[in-house]
Amino acid sequence: MPVVQPLAIALLIIANLAGSIGAQDVEKLVNRERIEARIMQLAEFGKNPQGGVSRVAFSEADIAGRAYLADLMREAQLEVSTDAAGNIIGRREGSDPSLAPIMFGSHADSVPEGGNYDGPVGVIAAIECAQVLVEQEVQTRHPLEVIIFSDEEGGLVGSRALIGHLSPGALKENSHSGLAIGEGIKAIGGDLDGLDQVVRKQGALTAFLELHIEQGAVLEETGVDIGVVEGIVGIKWWDLRITGKPNHAGTTPMDRRQNALLAAARYVLAVDQIIRSEPGTQVGTVGKISAEPGAHNVIPGVVMTSLEIRDLSAEKIDRLFTRIQQAVKDIAAETGTTFHFDLLDVTAVPAMMNDRIRSHILAAADTLGLSTKSMPSGAGHDAQDLARIAPTGMIFVPSRGGISHSPDEFTSAEDMANGAAVLLQALLNIDRDANGPGK
Amino acid sequence: MPVVQPLAIALLIIANLAGSIGAQDVEKLVNRERIEARIMQLAEFGKNPQGGVSRVAFSEADIAGRAYLADLMREAQLEVSTDAAGNIIGRREGSDPSLAPIMFGSHADSVPEGGNYDGPVGVIAAIECAQVLVEQEVQTRHPLEVIIFSDEEGGLVGSRALIGHLSPGALKENSHSGLAIGEGIKAIGGDLDGLDQVVRKQGALTAFLELHIEQGAVLEETGVDIGVVEGIVGIKWWDLRITGKPNHAGTTPMDRRQNALLAAARYVLAVDQIIRSEPGTQVGTVGKISAEPGAHNVIPGVVMTSLEIRDLSAEKIDRLFTRIQQAVKDIAAETGTTFHFDLLDVTAVPAMMNDRIRSHILAAADTLGLSTKSMPSGAGHDAQDLARIAPTGMIFVPSRGGISHSPDEFTSAEDMANGAAVLLQALLNIDRDANGPGK
Repeated sequence: MPVVQPLAIALLIIANLAGSIGAQDVEKLVNRERIEARIMQLAEFGKNPQGGVSRVAFSEADIAGRAYLADLMREAQLEVSTDAAGNIIGRREGSDPSLAPIMFGSHADSVPEGGNYDGPVGVIAAIECAQVLVEQEVQTRHPLEVIIFSDEEGGLVGSRALIGHLSPGALKENSHSGLAIGEGIKAIGGDLDGLDQVVRKQGALTAFLELHIEQGAVLEETGVDIGVVEGIVGIKWWDLRITGKPNHAGTTPMDRRQNALLAAARYVLAVDQIIRSEPGTQVGTVGKISAEPGAHNVIPGVVMTSLEIRDLSAEKIDRLFTRIQQAVKDIAAETGTTFHFDLLDVTAVPAMMNDRIRSHILAAADTLGLSTKSMPSGAGHDAQDLARIAPTGMIFVPSRGGISHSPDEFTSAEDMANGAAVLLQALLNIDRDANGPGK
Repeated sequence: MPVVQPLAIALLIIANLAGSIGAQDVEKLVNRERIEARIMQLAEFGKNPQGGVSRVAFSEADIAGRAYLADLMREAQLEVSTDAAGNIIGRREGSDPSLAPIMFGSHADSVPEGGNYDGPVGVIAAIECAQVLVEQEVQTRHPLEVIIFSDEEGGLVGSRALIGHLSPGALKENSHSGLAIGEGIKAIGGDLDGLDQVVRKQGALTAFLELHIEQGAVLEETGVDIGVVEGIVGIKWWDLRITGKPNHAGTTPMDRRQNALLAAARYVLAVDQIIRSEPGTQVGTVGKISAEPGAHNVIPGVVMTSLEIRDLSAEKIDRLFTRIQQAVKDIAAETGTTFHFDLLDVTAVPAMMNDRIRSHILAAADTLGLSTKSMPSGAGHDAQDLARIAPTGMIFVPSRGGISHSPDEFTSAEDMANGAAVLLQALLNIDRDANGPGK
């Protein structure tokens, strides 16, 4: 049978689109019904009564779901293997053996009581791309690798291993399944002694692409089809202790109180005001709070609370925190309290997406007549690890109501097909980019 | 031996004070060293390593402490009995059998991990007054009753019984000792079948007087010797649920949040501002707070918090609450949240002290050259029950640092002696008041 070169399929797509613009044309490129049916089929593994899934990594449901996906990969004529970290990789050779592969995929594990779209959309779409290439008899120049990362929700385990950043200590930590991560990797066919062989060095991949649901409501609320991720935000977490003086709420006049909760209230508002005071997409959140001793009739002596700041710029995160620290100095002085911040060891550095890959994604969406919006990813993804070793891009599709990590998570079949089509078109664009995507 | 009439001792006191003004003259009336020694002796019963006491009602320590106090009462030639509610009453007849007794006293039980002054100061001072009357050979017109109320810290049990407000249900509730209150009353010599006989009707007492530590820092900080209580505040408690929308802290832009904690912070500040906005001694406190789900990386969807308002005027409490409700309407609208208040069933109505009794206390302090300050009692006391059936007054002495319900509780011997002297002088003033104190 004739092998159609990428340029040819690109031209074919453009020809398909010549007459009209819109979702229907996406469907000439990818199979919307098949994507939706497979999402629903995968949702059977770990299905829960609320309509979502509890398919936590290394669980029986995860193992069964992975077997189902490996079968789909084989159906798409991919050479399927499980690496030592438990990542499933389906490989398709390219026409030029000298080229490094283009990798694309996502994860299939869920959080406990999770939904059917966070992860699966990227996995099913990646397999769809491979399937379409078979059906359209397209051979790419680059080898292609479809990847299903292991234990994304438990700490990006598979992608950490792939870039050589999975620490021996992490293997001993508990996963959502109850198994230690190391034990979990073995349960899904990995091999702890072989983790070194999993590592891809800088330059070992031509590109990495991940399609994912937005997990926010920006695309839905602005009516945009495709989010083109600029980068994955850095994250810093602090615990904060505010110390005042506990006292009898009946016998201590209002002007003689050192009320830690009054100080905390001003802190919460100051965080909101400072984060909003600069242009940009930075976010800052106080998510935890408790007062001690915590009784109706005692003025709070201590408040334990928190701070999280996320942004694409590490420098901006630090600057905003410095401004918050300055604000709390005044609050402390005026309320007779003290503030003590503890930076937690969960810091994530910002991971910028590759500009050329972003251009390819933008061009792909444009070719398909889909609207786009450049945006940060406020959530973490395997792509943030891959960005450290390869030119990386991420494609977002809308999440209804911005809901994720919940059985209420939902992305329409149309949006999933749009994302899959952009993924396919973008990887073909990258494949034929003579200059190389990362240059 | 000659019986000295009250007028005579009053004249004697005035004679004592003619030369100079101050604490030394108080000591000519009451015995400071004896008061201090007895406070220290009582502190041995239930003594804890932190220097305070855990002499909770109905405990062995309470029973032993009560026996010690009953002995002191007998030493002061009082006729000692335990009523059916476990109150210890030491009676001294007056010269006019037609007159209703003047009652004075306080409680001897402590909170768990309590201090040595909250309650005992009023009890030891009351016994001191009886002792001085013996030593000075003074006979009052009215019968006198020194009372040690049972289980004050567990819900004003003894005084509730005395006014006929101890419900059968309360007898089944647990006390700090672990015993049900009814069982505890039996353990200290009470008789549940005789509770009806305990009740004093309106008019059965000429007056009730209680000396107590302030449990606040107002007297200490203003350098005033004696607090003359205007009334015991009413108290209302509410639980409050603020409902927003939990969401991903990374993917939800700042302007698309329905952050229940941001609303709660504004509520906490609004309570403080509204309570302070009116003249007076009202207090309002938000003592409890927690956020759900309560994670660094989730925008709080629900905040559970509280409200307490105390004031001498029930109408003012209600008006302030109405203003808070109005303020939260705006906060709710502006933050996309809802507020739901639940009034708890722990409401205490304000108990006003009797004006004539207050005048007698003021005059007594003035006679002794002690400075006074009229003030509300922000804490509850047995006196609030007695105020429902008798002209009642309360005398406060300073608490170091305003600390109470803690081993760090402290009132100096000088302040205790001042309080005892004012108590004695006030009851003599009341005794010789031809118009009757409550008229």
